[in-house]
Amino acid sequence: MWNKNELTQKLGIAYPIIQAGMAGGVTTPELIAAVSNAGGLGNLGAGYMQPEQMKQTIQKVKALTDQPFGVNVFIPEIPEVSEVDLEKANEWLRPFREELKLKEPAVGKPSTALFEQQLEIIIEEQVPVCSFTFGVPSKAIIQQLKRENITLVGTATTVNEAMINEEIGVDMVVVQGSEAGGHRGTFSIPFGEAMVGTMALVPQTVDHIGIPVIAAGGIMDGRGVLAALTLGAQAVQMGTAFVTSLESGAKKQHIESILNSTEDQPQITSVFSGKPARGIQNEFMTKMAPYEKELPSYPVQNALTKEIRTEAAKQDRPEWLSLWSGQGSRLSKRLSARELVVGIVSQVNQLVR
Amino acid sequence: MWNKNELTQKLGIAYPIIQAGMAGGVTTPELIAAVSNAGGLGNLGAGYMQPEQMKQTIQKVKALTDQPFGVNVFIPEIPEVSEVDLEKANEWLRPFREELKLKEPAVGKPSTALFEQQLEIIIEEQVPVCSFTFGVPSKAIIQQLKRENITLVGTATTVNEAMINEEIGVDMVVVQGSEAGGHRGTFSIPFGEAMVGTMALVPQTVDHIGIPVIAAGGIMDGRGVLAALTLGAQAVQMGTAFVTSLESGAKKQHIESILNSTEDQPQITSVFSGKPARGIQNEFMTKMAPYEKELPSYPVQNALTKEIRTEAAKQDRPEWLSLWSGQGSRLSKRLSARELVVGIVSQVNQLVR
Repeated sequence: MWNKNELTQKLGIAYPIIQAGMAGGVTTPELIAAVSNAGGLGNLGAGYMQPEQMKQTIQKVKALTDQPFGVNVFIPEIPEVSEVDLEKANEWLRPFREELKLKEPAVGKPSTALFEQQLEIIIEEQVPVCSFTFGVPSKAIIQQLKRENITLVGTATTVNEAMINEEIGVDMVVVQGSEAGGHRGTFSIPFGEAMVGTMALVPQTVDHIGIPVIAAGGIMDGRGVLAALTLGAQAVQMGTAFVTSLESGAKKQHIESILNSTEDQPQITSVFSGKPARGIQNEFMTKMAPYEKELPSYPVQNALTKEIRTEAAKQDRPEWLSLWSGQGSRLSKRLSARELVVGIVSQVNQLVR
Repeated sequence: MWNKNELTQKLGIAYPIIQAGMAGGVTTPELIAAVSNAGGLGNLGAGYMQPEQMKQTIQKVKALTDQPFGVNVFIPEIPEVSEVDLEKANEWLRPFREELKLKEPAVGKPSTALFEQQLEIIIEEQVPVCSFTFGVPSKAIIQQLKRENITLVGTATTVNEAMINEEIGVDMVVVQGSEAGGHRGTFSIPFGEAMVGTMALVPQTVDHIGIPVIAAGGIMDGRGVLAALTLGAQAVQMGTAFVTSLESGAKKQHIESILNSTEDQPQITSVFSGKPARGIQNEFMTKMAPYEKELPSYPVQNALTKEIRTEAAKQDRPEWLSLWSGQGSRLSKRLSARELVVGIVSQVNQLVR
């Protein structure tokens, strides 16, 4: 049986299909619960979430499903950003703010406080699965969460990063191929050196670590799921496929853009957040590209562009939104999350017959 | 049976495993014949070959196998390169030439003459399969070769390029994922926009064309072969895996570099040939990187660096060689081509059991 392995047993799920914990409002309680209720693993993208909102969302998920689900959090990064760099960035962003009638935002200093509060909630709420992106947590945090019987999932973009995750003690690791949409999880080398395609990354990782590997990047349907399992992964993580689902909280322009895109449109950019991410090429990306290397690091740049993105959605200007998408975008469909999971399972069942 | 389909029938091969027609001396008659004799399809990388040498090599292949094989040729490109640009490039290359005790080479004007002579030989020698890289040939050429019962194979790096290939009339098309080693086959858009991973590229292409798709990029073993077939490809094309085979004509430093590399070392560079290609990062790449955008286009830059690469191999300086490799390099093995093919076939047989 393609769906029974160490990972599905450990997570207590029927099918090795994980919905990525995408931050920024995509992962509604309805989406998470629909995926978990269909036999996959729904995940809350809590990376940017404030404690109270996060807690309420988790409670809402619990009200909608009695199946396991996960929460994804970001390992904090505290970059040094000078006043001069901040001023330069604000100057480059001024034309967008003017047209949207926005003021320059006050941007607070990044801290690790939010991350610590998020972990407390995960423990309090007894969330079954916790995943990390943008690095690995300390061994102390790993031990604390393990004592609470929380299953831990890391993120890697190279074989070496997967080995670092195994060494620190996570239970399983997502390997994110270069096809993946949204932010790159690279944390150990310059991101450009870690753009390894899923087809190459999965088998090489499987050969070098003992914990289960979850394949991510370019997987959109049953063909991709079975191919990833064939390469040695024990599950897949899919993001883009769920962004266009009916329960998705993604902005409607974002969903439309993915549904109408070709595979060469999602490109890597740092201009939205200060961290490389894959999204459908648009005017904000091309206009800001000349300044890309001089922009403040994540999460400062992310904070600087936040209102622009929110307001651009309200004013229906998709050309200034972050339209995160992986390279499998031509395969996207507008379906309920249940239909998506059920369709994938039946496609895999037909392929293995 | 995983190995029986329209493509294997059309090509008359037992297994859907194609050895890429890598130019530059890698594809010896012994390699090509070994792959074809093992039930795959060997290919001569004739891109840079002069007519007489090409003819002799083809005749040698025929002496070593009665099985089908192919020849790969390059669609000619005639860039405009000014004297000033040429002088600048020579100036940047001077330190390497001085240390290797080489003179500045006389570089002839690129022309289409070689390509036309190559096609004549393919017809004269009744080569069973002809593949094209760096574009599509004219409809007249397609028709001429088809009248000779030569099976034609195109190369694409996007869904749209695969559609262009189908429209022009080739029988099947290699889709080259971003993982692939050596030169990118991109011909319709800026190469950077066409870096689509194999996992995403194959199913999207299969959904949009009617001719068989051959998957390339990051495929190194039975897992990769079966994954690619699961995605909808009818065959795979493997380059890097054969570069390290015993029959390979690759320079020994090139083979050693691949065998000792990690998946993040093969990076994209244009500095060797003027065209983006994936090779293991070395000193020539890092030292020439600052001039990358100002170097003459392919094939002029290729001609300018040819002697440097040849002489660097002789003087055992791998840091100045083009060490083409895909991202699956950790999976490389030093085996005979027969052992490689037989091993893959038995691995796939075990996986499908």
